[in-house]
Amino acid sequence: MQAGIITISREFGSGGRVIGERLAEALGLPCYDRSIIEQAAKESGLSEAFIEEEEQRFDNSMLFSLSMGNAPLAAGGLDLPGRVFEAESAVIRKLAGQGGCVMVGRCADYLLREYPALLSVFICGDFDKRVKRAVEVYGLPPEKAARTVRARDKQRARHYHFYTDRTWGGREWYDMTLNSSRLGMDVCVDLLAAAARRTFG
Amino acid sequence: MQAGIITISREFGSGGRVIGERLAEALGLPCYDRSIIEQAAKESGLSEAFIEEEEQRFDNSMLFSLSMGNAPLAAGGLDLPGRVFEAESAVIRKLAGQGGCVMVGRCADYLLREYPALLSVFICGDFDKRVKRAVEVYGLPPEKAARTVRARDKQRARHYHFYTDRTWGGREWYDMTLNSSRLGMDVCVDLLAAAARRTFG
Repeated sequence: MQAGIITISREFGSGGRVIGERLAEALGLPCYDRSIIEQAAKESGLSEAFIEEEEQRFDNSMLFSLSMGNAPLAAGGLDLPGRVFEAESAVIRKLAGQGGCVMVGRCADYLLREYPALLSVFICGDFDKRVKRAVEVYGLPPEKAARTVRARDKQRARHYHFYTDRTWGGREWYDMTLNSSRLGMDVCVDLLAAAARRTFG
Repeated sequence: MQAGIITISREFGSGGRVIGERLAEALGLPCYDRSIIEQAAKESGLSEAFIEEEEQRFDNSMLFSLSMGNAPLAAGGLDLPGRVFEAESAVIRKLAGQGGCVMVGRCADYLLREYPALLSVFICGDFDKRVKRAVEVYGLPPEKAARTVRARDKQRARHYHFYTDRTWGGREWYDMTLNSSRLGMDVCVDLLAAAARRTFG
């Protein structure tokens, strides 16, 4: 198979990350997710824990900066969330240059939009099923799970829109959008593998 | 294969209707599109030409009715667009009761939302590719094609929202959304056939 890249954006609790891992396994490709953070951390000089925390706090941090009319500057002259994003973007582009892979999240679909062999995927799911999964798989307290799922989706949507000027999950930005609650994760993996094989030849 | 129903909603010029026809052929199922209008026409007592015209004029007709604070009443007591929609809905439900099939457009995904073996699909496409197809396949004048594609999409979105209270093309309402411009129509047909076989067993 040609060195194709599959990017996966996903709603919280939809199982998109697991689908990405299993898809990569089926295609014999590496899957980049947390490892992107780790590499970005090493190459930017920012600590891994800091990057992760910064991503989680993106909303508060950006809203605070904007409300003050400016952004908190890091050593490099960029605001802190901007510096984290730049570090991750560099890693994503570098990894893309190394050959076929699956990339989960982190605006990879946007960053690699000019890449010639790209399959851009969005995984969504029914809200109640995602809440159930958040409780069972991530161990969220049942009374807080619905609020957390909603908040994480909003956070991802805002982050994506801030850096890409696109609507997160809008059909015009993806080659395929699959509902994992209704199709099931096995079917999602198989359909994506088939699409990748057909698209990349 | 179990008596599954695949509903296809589609952007204008995306080739969704042709994909539906080819999918039906691949699965050995009937495909209902124009024939729904014909049957609805016969059963409602409204002429086929009138139904078709009414669908095209949906926007103007509804907007006029609403602006007047009421709807033009037909013999049955329903406003005219409502009567057409009711006639089509009855046909769609009747056809669904006859076994597996592919249904293109006409809010079938919404009308059959409680149907136990349903695969709900949305076909979209890149705007410029759809305009090109509208010129080449439907013979639209090139200088008017972009405006027509935009207008027909808006018309479909308004019609769908009016009768279903859902956002047309919103990812939460479909099991799969495929971009036919980027995947190609052959791949769309094959992926949908695979999904149908897996979903309906």
